[in-house]
Amino acid sequence: MNAGVEWALHSCLNLAWTEPGETVTATKLAAFYDLPAAYLNKQLQALAKAGILTSNSGPRGGFRLARRPEDITLLDVVTAIEGPEEAFRCAGIMRHGPGGRADIDYRKTCAVSQAMHRSELAWRRELAAQTIADLKDVVERAHPYVPERTRTHLANL
Amino acid sequence: MNAGVEWALHSCLNLAWTEPGETVTATKLAAFYDLPAAYLNKQLQALAKAGILTSNSGPRGGFRLARRPEDITLLDVVTAIEGPEEAFRCAGIMRHGPGGRADIDYRKTCAVSQAMHRSELAWRRELAAQTIADLKDVVERAHPYVPERTRTHLANL
Repeated sequence: MNAGVEWALHSCLNLAWTEPGETVTATKLAAFYDLPAAYLNKQLQALAKAGILTSNSGPRGGFRLARRPEDITLLDVVTAIEGPEEAFRCAGIMRHGPGGRADIDYRKTCAVSQAMHRSELAWRRELAAQTIADLKDVVERAHPYVPERTRTHLANL
Repeated sequence: MNAGVEWALHSCLNLAWTEPGETVTATKLAAFYDLPAAYLNKQLQALAKAGILTSNSGPRGGFRLARRPEDITLLDVVTAIEGPEEAFRCAGIMRHGPGGRADIDYRKTCAVSQAMHRSELAWRRELAAQTIADLKDVVERAHPYVPERTRTHLANL
């Protein structure tokens, strides 16, 4: 999995801690964790394209969450960065085996493909059951000072 | 995910349908689905290293299942081919954020890392709950002729 997923999730969390309506530039979001700004910007653009972030251009431009943290699941973020393809990509090798047919979509009929698909669904279900708000709560319960420290740190970058 | 996972699972299934004690060469297992033999051989060696297959050298050499199909889970096969690493590899970017520390293992403490880990566990649990015997049953229920056809096809390659 792309390192961008880790960057994207942490950046969404940082944006969840900014004041409502406030935007943060890609440069600041990258500097927060000493990440390469150009590459993080690509991930942020992917999040914007997926409707997770809103991007404003101009001198006071930057990124903010496009919806409430409760309404952004980890699956939304992972899919925005990694794409919707499954990790197991059935190449339909049964097509070349005995009785194989070119007109069958083996992703739908092959026992191997379906078992792998079922496993990925379990992963996606778990990602879909967790939101940015959940992560935010976990962090704030353990470290109540983090929201304020994040805002201060972003302001001073 | 490596295409070798698909090849390995289908090859395990084909070996589950051979007569007890019979071995099948990498060349035949590859020819079954028109796969590149040298590359499939690498996957078969990885399965042998993981204790899923037994490999015999010599003129009548080849591969067979090292244990009963009931005792080979999809997780065993995926791990043998893909390695034990998680797809989400926490790079610990928090180390470079405010309050970040070099002596903390963020895989164990970071909310993002733990949420991603929890999701992968759901995937692994599902893979571990399915065995080669389960796949075999699914195929045989839908297509009772497959075991015999597989043996005949392998014998004629």
